[in-house]
Amino acid sequence: MRLTKKDLLGIKDLSVDEINLILETAESFIEVSTREIKKVPTLRGKTVINLFMEPSTRTRTSFEIAGKRLSADTINISASTSSVVKGETLIDTARNLEAMNPDVIVLRHSASGAPHLLARLVKQSIINAGDGAHEHPTQALLDMMTIKARKGRIAGLKVAIVGDIAHSRVARSNIYGLTRMGAQVAVAGPATMLPRAIEQMGVTVHYRIEDAVRGADIIMMLRIQMERENQNVFPSLREYAKYFCLNRKNIRLAKDDVLVMHPGPINRGVEIAPDIADGPASVILEQVTNGVAVRMALLYLLSGGRS
Amino acid sequence: MRLTKKDLLGIKDLSVDEINLILETAESFIEVSTREIKKVPTLRGKTVINLFMEPSTRTRTSFEIAGKRLSADTINISASTSSVVKGETLIDTARNLEAMNPDVIVLRHSASGAPHLLARLVKQSIINAGDGAHEHPTQALLDMMTIKARKGRIAGLKVAIVGDIAHSRVARSNIYGLTRMGAQVAVAGPATMLPRAIEQMGVTVHYRIEDAVRGADIIMMLRIQMERENQNVFPSLREYAKYFCLNRKNIRLAKDDVLVMHPGPINRGVEIAPDIADGPASVILEQVTNGVAVRMALLYLLSGGRS
Amino acid sequence: MRLTKKDLLGIKDLSVDEINLILETAESFIEVSTREIKKVPTLRGKTVINLFMEPSTRTRTSFEIAGKRLSADTINISASTSSVVKGETLIDTARNLEAMNPDVIVLRHSASGAPHLLARLVKQSIINAGDGAHEHPTQALLDMMTIKARKGRIAGLKVAIVGDIAHSRVARSNIYGLTRMGAQVAVAGPATMLPRAIEQMGVTVHYRIEDAVRGADIIMMLRIQMERENQNVFPSLREYAKYFCLNRKNIRLAKDDVLVMHPGPINRGVEIAPDIADGPASVILEQVTNGVAVRMALLYLLSGGRS
Repeated sequence: MRLTKKDLLGIKDLSVDEINLILETAESFIEVSTREIKKVPTLRGKTVINLFMEPSTRTRTSFEIAGKRLSADTINISASTSSVVKGETLIDTARNLEAMNPDVIVLRHSASGAPHLLARLVKQSIINAGDGAHEHPTQALLDMMTIKARKGRIAGLKVAIVGDIAHSRVARSNIYGLTRMGAQVAVAGPATMLPRAIEQMGVTVHYRIEDAVRGADIIMMLRIQMERENQNVFPSLREYAKYFCLNRKNIRLAKDDVLVMHPGPINRGVEIAPDIADGPASVILEQVTNGVAVRMALLYLLSGGRS
Repeated sequence: MRLTKKDLLGIKDLSVDEINLILETAESFIEVSTREIKKVPTLRGKTVINLFMEPSTRTRTSFEIAGKRLSADTINISASTSSVVKGETLIDTARNLEAMNPDVIVLRHSASGAPHLLARLVKQSIINAGDGAHEHPTQALLDMMTIKARKGRIAGLKVAIVGDIAHSRVARSNIYGLTRMGAQVAVAGPATMLPRAIEQMGVTVHYRIEDAVRGADIIMMLRIQMERENQNVFPSLREYAKYFCLNRKNIRLAKDDVLVMHPGPINRGVEIAPDIADGPASVILEQVTNGVAVRMALLYLLSGGRS
Repeated sequence: MRLTKKDLLGIKDLSVDEINLILETAESFIEVSTREIKKVPTLRGKTVINLFMEPSTRTRTSFEIAGKRLSADTINISASTSSVVKGETLIDTARNLEAMNPDVIVLRHSASGAPHLLARLVKQSIINAGDGAHEHPTQALLDMMTIKARKGRIAGLKVAIVGDIAHSRVARSNIYGLTRMGAQVAVAGPATMLPRAIEQMGVTVHYRIEDAVRGADIIMMLRIQMERENQNVFPSLREYAKYFCLNRKNIRLAKDDVLVMHPGPINRGVEIAPDIADGPASVILEQVTNGVAVRMALLYLLSGGRS
């Protein structure tokens, strides 16, 4: 089977079969990163451009490692060093990159929809590495891969997502993916962090973390954007942590074998207590490991590879 | 035939034979970037350092892709991350890089003559990727390659170059190259943007865009440095655009099969109307594609390769 | 013989045999960088992460070139582009990188002990590329390699180290290494730049450059951190240069065949006169060349290679 899409723009566009294809391909790539020689010649002579218009260590590094382990040539372009400082539009940047014949362009951008714009403009495959508050599909895929690896399935699981749902592309992509794969998703956060009409995405909505995590198989904690403090989104970090931090006490409401996830970077003591982040239920670092495999799978499948 | 020069510092130093050698070698490399596996082993085990003391997406990316498609190891050093922040001189930086045994150093620098200084100091090949308002030889070579590919020749063509001629390294390198190759070059811009005694470079000088483009085979529009507005170079962008923007109306004065070129990044609506930049006469993206091939040719020829 | 350590954190931890092993391995790698094809397949499929939380051209470039010449995949992460801007702790950064299965992490950090913290946390090899005012072991190793290459031995030589001893990780690592290898080390600097109880490191202490360099086989000049001027460490650069600059006059007190060393970047006319830096006694650029070889040796040995 092969992925017939040119681009990976969001989880919203993916069918169950496509998600399964990506996850299974990723599982087959996990082994490469554990070898003595962590490299396969699959994408030799392919060019992958990481175009990051927002800072990010882990996502850029994960894509770069994924590309290199497949023997692709990887090129990093970050906003601070790019022509963007000369005021070039994203459209012109994209067309210029297209003219240099890359195979895949990985885009991180602060504007929702930026990867979709690129995908329409250029003939190369675009992978959305996070666009504004819209989607972060590779994060959701690595999250689903982690859940499937640990629980054997996604369908029927109860997943709680807690934090700033309204501004989180991670939450949005996971809600699309998890509900499509048959999980029950409960979200929780302060009223100011819950988007209107979020129920229409097929989730249940709660205003207390305890109500969302009760009986959960999986708890996904979202990163609080500290820079949003005092911007009328939440009163203070202390206040937020008091009511929404995942800790030793409220985690007891979840199933005994609950898994704790976080997209990173973690604010210890804000959205998650340090002993929970580092505790036995945490699969946060497995998420990172699986991230490399998911990105290898996508680079491979979008370059024409078959499962 | 082989290039006997150690360095590529400017078009001014190149003979007609040398320009032809570079263009023909570049033409032979165009095909590599269109293959399924876009990579040849030509420069395996060679080290190319991209030393960019001024920000640039497209030129740095173009050199990096060129190096990687030839299998060279490429190292990027940009001003913001370099020891330059500790106050090291360019001379010491260069001698240090030399001691690490690279094969080619590609230098972008804000000071005219910086690559010439380096070339005298170090034994490695230096490629000038733009030095102040002096020269940008790889841009002129890719421009000539584009003209030759489309028109079959350069000699005898009428080329108009419009904009801030005085501060443009692109204009200067193209004037050297195009006049040497037998084209007739007409320049136009506001009086404040035309250098004194520019006629001595063998071009005709005009103060209205209409006079320069009349009967032109090629129109090269230069980028306006927006940051120079209100610095007594030009009164306002609006004023500049009113008189010097290439648009649907003034382009009619050129030949029917005129080609429109621009080194990028484009200021749409300032020096060039959007419908012209994206219209059928525009070869702006071909310039970018040819840029990779020209840089592959130079890396190859300066590393001792033969045509 | 093989290096049994997981990490290279400091010279203080190295035995004479370990230092000799590293220097001999480095000598065997010198030749690779002088070949036509400067690349060996030794570390193919290995991933080396250069995590630089402080700016540095030469050290990062030296490690990157070393990695590439051994065919490793190299990934650069610099503070300005990393998640550190989002407030992630070094611990979380390290654990995340660990989860991506690199083989070696090279760390430059402004905090003394940062690499030791990392080494305890992650299973990969850590190489200290400079931590605060603590150690810079690869610099000391390349310095010892340079001395050995020129003098045939280290034991019994008289080495003067002059400058801001108190704040210099280069001085500290060299004092550990040189005294262990049997050299006699004399340090000199203004009283404000000499740490208390420095004699306990086995060196003699002087307050005049003349007293330290008298009879020296080797003079190591340290870089003055210009940004420390007027911070009560020294009164002015002019004052410092007057008393502690190595020049034509005070160098005469050393042996006739004295070698002059400097870790770079040089402040010409501050700690070293230009004619001395560029003169026949200077081996400053050999240090840089040897730096690539020392880093190749460490990457090789820490990845399980044998001498």
